[in-house]
Amino acid sequence: MNTAERLDAVFLALADPTRRAMLARLATGEASVTELARPFDMSQPAVSKHLKVLERAGLIVAGRDAQRRPRRIEPKPLAEASAWLERYRDMWEESFQRLDGLLEKLQRPAVPERRPRSRRKADR
Amino acid sequence: MNTAERLDAVFLALADPTRRAMLARLATGEASVTELARPFDMSQPAVSKHLKVLERAGLIVAGRDAQRRPRRIEPKPLAEASAWLERYRDMWEESFQRLDGLLEKLQRPAVPERRPRSRRKADR
Repeated sequence: MNTAERLDAVFLALADPTRRAMLARLATGEASVTELARPFDMSQPAVSKHLKVLERAGLIVAGRDAQRRPRRIEPKPLAEASAWLERYRDMWEESFQRLDGLLEKLQRPAVPERRPRSRRKADR
Repeated sequence: MNTAERLDAVFLALADPTRRAMLARLATGEASVTELARPFDMSQPAVSKHLKVLERAGLIVAGRDAQRRPRRIEPKPLAEASAWLERYRDMWEESFQRLDGLLEKLQRPAVPERRPRSRRKADR
Protein backbone atom coordinates (compact mmCIF):
# COMPACT_ATOMS: atom_id res chain seq x y z
CA MET A 1 0.00 0.00 0.00
CA ASN A 2 1.36 3.45 -0.86
CA THR A 3 0.66 6.56 1.23
CA ALA A 4 -2.50 7.50 -0.72
CA GLU A 5 -3.91 3.98 -0.39
CA ARG A 6 -3.09 3.96 3.32
CA LEU A 7 -4.88 7.30 3.79
CA ASP A 8 -7.89 5.96 1.82
CA ALA A 9 -8.08 2.92 4.11
CA VAL A 10 -7.61 4.91 7.33
CA PHE A 11 -10.18 7.61 6.52
CA LEU A 12 -12.65 4.94 5.37
CA ALA A 13 -12.13 3.02 8.62
CA LEU A 14 -12.79 6.18 10.63
CA ALA A 15 -16.01 6.97 8.70
CA ASP A 16 -18.16 4.86 10.99
CA PRO A 17 -19.28 5.45 14.61
CA THR A 18 -18.95 1.76 15.61
CA ARG A 19 -15.36 1.59 14.36
CA ARG A 20 -14.50 4.89 16.08
CA ALA A 21 -16.03 3.50 19.31
CA MET A 22 -13.97 0.30 18.95
CA LEU A 23 -10.80 2.38 18.63
CA ALA A 24 -11.80 4.44 21.66
CA ARG A 25 -12.27 1.20 23.62
CA LEU A 26 -8.89 -0.14 22.45
CA ALA A 27 -7.22 3.11 23.48
CA THR A 28 -7.88 2.00 27.08
CA GLY A 29 -6.14 -1.36 26.52
CA GLU A 30 -6.30 -4.51 24.40
CA ALA A 31 -9.57 -6.46 24.14
CA SER A 32 -10.85 -9.75 22.73
CA VAL A 33 -13.37 -9.73 19.89
CA THR A 34 -16.12 -10.70 22.37
CA GLU A 35 -15.20 -7.79 24.64
CA LEU A 36 -15.12 -5.42 21.68
CA ALA A 37 -18.54 -6.61 20.48
CA ARG A 38 -20.23 -6.33 23.90
CA PRO A 39 -21.39 -2.67 23.78
CA PHE A 40 -22.91 -3.06 20.30
CA ASP A 41 -26.23 -4.64 19.41
CA MET A 42 -24.69 -6.32 16.40
CA SER A 43 -24.27 -9.80 14.91
CA GLN A 44 -20.87 -11.51 15.14
CA PRO A 45 -20.34 -11.25 11.33
CA ALA A 46 -21.07 -7.50 11.47
CA VAL A 47 -18.51 -7.08 14.26
CA SER A 48 -15.94 -9.13 12.32
CA LYS A 49 -16.51 -6.99 9.24
CA HIS A 50 -15.79 -3.80 11.19
CA LEU A 51 -12.66 -5.34 12.68
CA LYS A 52 -11.47 -6.33 9.21
CA VAL A 53 -11.83 -2.74 8.00
CA LEU A 54 -9.80 -1.53 10.99
CA GLU A 55 -7.18 -4.24 10.42
CA ARG A 56 -6.89 -3.46 6.72
CA ALA A 57 -6.19 0.17 7.63
CA GLY A 58 -3.46 -1.01 10.01
CA LEU A 59 -5.31 0.57 12.94
CA ILE A 60 -5.57 -2.62 14.96
CA VAL A 61 -3.50 -5.80 15.21
CA ALA A 62 -4.34 -9.18 16.67
CA GLY A 63 -2.21 -10.42 19.57
CA ARG A 64 -0.40 -13.75 19.63
CA ASP A 65 -2.48 -15.42 22.38
CA ALA A 66 -4.03 -18.24 20.30
CA GLN A 67 -7.19 -18.44 22.39
CA ARG A 68 -8.17 -14.81 22.88
CA ARG A 69 -6.39 -13.18 19.92
CA PRO A 70 -6.74 -9.84 21.73
CA ARG A 71 -6.83 -6.80 19.49
CA ARG A 72 -4.71 -3.77 20.25
CA ILE A 73 -4.64 -0.35 18.69
CA GLU A 74 -1.78 0.60 16.37
CA PRO A 75 -1.72 4.42 16.45
CA LYS A 76 0.77 5.13 13.61
CA PRO A 77 -1.85 5.41 10.82
CA LEU A 78 -3.75 7.93 12.96
CA ALA A 79 -0.58 10.03 13.02
CA GLU A 80 -0.47 9.94 9.20
CA ALA A 81 -4.12 10.99 8.92
CA SER A 82 -3.51 13.78 11.41
CA ALA A 83 -0.45 14.97 9.47
CA TRP A 84 -2.57 15.17 6.31
CA LEU A 85 -5.19 17.31 8.10
CA GLU A 86 -2.51 19.56 9.65
CA ARG A 87 -1.85 21.09 6.21
CA TYR A 88 -5.22 22.82 6.51
CA ARG A 89 -4.74 24.11 10.07
CA ASP A 90 -3.85 27.65 8.90
CA MET A 91 -7.08 27.74 6.89
CA TRP A 92 -9.40 26.77 9.74
CA GLU A 93 -7.58 28.97 12.27
CA GLU A 94 -7.95 31.99 9.96
CA SER A 95 -11.61 31.15 9.47
CA PHE A 96 -12.17 30.97 13.25
CA GLN A 97 -10.35 34.28 13.71
CA ARG A 98 -12.60 35.93 11.12
CA LEU A 99 -15.64 34.57 12.96
CA ASP A 100 -14.29 35.84 16.31
CA GLY A 101 -13.77 39.27 14.75
CA LEU A 102 -17.30 39.30 13.41
CA LEU A 103 -18.83 38.26 16.74
CA GLU A 104 -16.83 40.95 18.55
CA LYS A 105 -18.13 43.56 16.10
CA LEU A 106 -21.73 42.39 16.58
CA GLN A 107 -21.43 42.52 20.39
CA ARG A 108 -20.02 46.06 20.45
CA PRO A 109 -22.60 48.70 21.60
CA ALA A 110 -24.25 50.33 18.60
CA VAL A 111 -22.75 53.85 18.69
CA PRO A 112 -22.50 55.85 15.47
CA GLU A 113 -19.07 55.35 13.98
CA ARG A 114 -16.79 58.41 13.74
CA ARG A 115 -15.66 58.83 10.20
CA PRO A 116 -11.90 59.29 9.81
CA ARG A 117 -10.66 62.84 8.96
CA SER A 118 -9.16 61.93 5.60
CA ARG A 119 -12.51 60.52 4.49
CA ARG A 120 -14.33 63.79 5.47
CA LYS A 121 -11.89 65.82 3.44
CA ALA A 122 -12.38 63.59 0.45
CA ASP A 123 -16.14 64.05 0.70
CA ARG A 124 -16.00 67.85 0.38
CA MET B 1 -26.52 16.19 11.31
CA ASN B 2 -25.08 15.51 14.75
CA THR B 3 -21.34 15.40 15.48
CA ALA B 4 -21.04 11.64 14.80
CA GLU B 5 -22.85 11.97 11.46
CA ARG B 6 -20.67 14.94 10.52
CA LEU B 7 -17.51 12.96 11.35
CA ASP B 8 -18.82 10.01 9.29
CA ALA B 9 -19.40 12.30 6.30
CA VAL B 10 -16.05 14.10 6.63
CA PHE B 11 -13.92 10.95 7.02
CA LEU B 12 -15.80 9.31 4.13
CA ALA B 13 -15.18 12.37 1.95
CA LEU B 14 -11.46 12.22 2.77
CA ALA B 15 -11.22 8.49 1.94
CA ASP B 16 -10.55 9.14 -1.74
CA PRO B 17 -7.44 10.51 -3.51
CA THR B 18 -9.46 12.53 -6.06
CA ARG B 19 -11.45 14.27 -3.35
CA ARG B 20 -8.29 14.97 -1.33
CA ALA B 21 -6.68 16.41 -4.48
CA MET B 22 -9.76 18.60 -5.07
CA LEU B 23 -9.47 19.96 -1.53
CA ALA B 24 -5.74 20.59 -2.04
CA ARG B 25 -6.59 22.53 -5.22
CA LEU B 26 -9.29 24.55 -3.41
CA ALA B 27 -6.85 25.36 -0.61
CA THR B 28 -5.06 27.57 -3.18
CA GLY B 29 -8.29 29.48 -4.02
CA GLU B 30 -11.83 28.96 -5.32
CA ALA B 31 -12.38 27.12 -8.61
CA SER B 32 -15.21 26.34 -11.01
CA VAL B 33 -16.31 22.74 -11.56
CA THR B 34 -14.55 22.74 -14.95
CA GLU B 35 -11.31 23.95 -13.36
CA LEU B 36 -11.60 21.33 -10.62
CA ALA B 37 -12.23 18.55 -13.13
CA ARG B 38 -9.29 19.49 -15.40
CA PRO B 39 -6.46 17.46 -13.76
CA PHE B 40 -8.57 14.29 -13.64
CA ASP B 41 -9.26 11.89 -16.45
CA MET B 42 -12.85 11.53 -15.37
CA SER B 43 -16.38 11.94 -16.74
CA GLN B 44 -18.43 14.99 -15.74
CA PRO B 45 -20.89 12.82 -13.72
CA ALA B 46 -17.97 11.24 -11.81
CA VAL B 47 -16.62 14.71 -10.98
CA SER B 48 -20.08 15.87 -9.86
CA LYS B 49 -20.44 12.83 -7.63
CA HIS B 50 -17.14 13.59 -5.87
CA LEU B 51 -18.18 17.24 -5.41
CA LYS B 52 -21.50 16.13 -3.90
CA VAL B 53 -19.68 13.96 -1.33
CA LEU B 54 -17.48 16.93 -0.40
CA GLU B 55 -20.52 19.24 -0.23
CA ARG B 56 -22.49 16.81 1.92
CA ALA B 57 -19.57 16.74 4.38
CA GLY B 58 -19.65 20.55 4.44
CA LEU B 59 -16.08 20.66 3.12
CA ILE B 60 -16.90 22.80 0.08
CA VAL B 61 -19.56 25.38 -0.71
CA ALA B 62 -20.73 26.80 -4.03
CA GLY B 63 -20.31 30.55 -4.55
CA ARG B 64 -23.12 32.90 -5.60
CA ASP B 65 -21.84 33.73 -9.10
CA ALA B 66 -24.72 32.19 -11.12
CA GLN B 67 -22.55 31.40 -14.16
CA ARG B 68 -19.42 29.88 -12.61
CA ARG B 69 -20.74 28.73 -9.23
CA PRO B 70 -17.13 28.60 -8.01
CA ARG B 71 -16.49 26.13 -5.21
CA ARG B 72 -14.52 27.17 -2.17
CA ILE B 73 -13.15 25.15 0.70
CA GLU B 74 -14.85 25.33 4.10
CA PRO B 75 -12.17 24.26 6.58
CA LYS B 76 -14.28 23.94 9.78
CA PRO B 77 -15.13 20.21 9.33
CA LEU B 78 -11.41 19.49 8.89
CA ALA B 79 -10.85 21.08 12.31
CA GLU B 80 -13.44 18.72 13.80
CA ALA B 81 -11.81 15.67 12.21
CA SER B 82 -8.41 16.84 13.44
CA ALA B 83 -9.77 17.33 16.98
CA TRP B 84 -11.06 13.75 16.96
CA LEU B 85 -7.63 12.43 15.92
CA GLU B 86 -5.86 14.58 18.53
CA ARG B 87 -7.22 12.35 21.31
CA TYR B 88 -4.83 9.65 20.10
CA ARG B 89 -1.77 11.89 19.87
CA ASP B 90 -0.34 10.66 23.20
CA MET B 91 -0.63 7.09 21.93
CA TRP B 92 1.26 7.61 18.68
CA GLU B 93 3.89 9.84 20.31
CA GLU B 94 4.57 7.15 22.91
CA SER B 95 4.77 4.54 20.17
CA PHE B 96 7.28 6.67 18.20
CA GLN B 97 9.33 7.19 21.35
CA ARG B 98 9.44 3.44 21.96
CA LEU B 99 10.61 2.96 18.38
CA ASP B 100 13.28 5.66 18.79
CA GLY B 101 14.47 3.94 21.95
CA LEU B 102 14.66 0.61 20.19
CA LEU B 103 16.58 2.05 17.22
CA GLU B 104 19.03 3.77 19.58
CA LYS B 105 19.63 0.46 21.36
CA LEU B 106 20.22 -1.34 18.07
CA GLN B 107 22.72 1.29 16.88
CA ARG B 108 24.74 1.24 20.13
CA PRO B 109 28.09 -0.65 19.82
CA ALA B 110 27.67 -4.21 21.05
CA VAL B 111 29.54 -4.09 24.39
CA PRO B 112 28.52 -6.50 27.16
CA GLU B 113 26.00 -4.76 29.43
CA ARG B 114 27.03 -4.17 33.06
CA ARG B 115 24.46 -5.64 35.34
CA PRO B 116 23.28 -3.33 38.14
CA ARG B 117 24.57 -4.04 41.70
CA SER B 118 21.20 -4.82 43.22
CA ARG B 119 20.56 -7.43 40.53
CA ARG B 120 23.91 -9.13 41.25
CA LYS B 121 23.05 -9.40 44.96
CA ALA B 122 19.69 -10.91 44.20
CA ASP B 123 21.30 -13.53 41.98
CA ARG B 124 23.48 -14.94 44.74
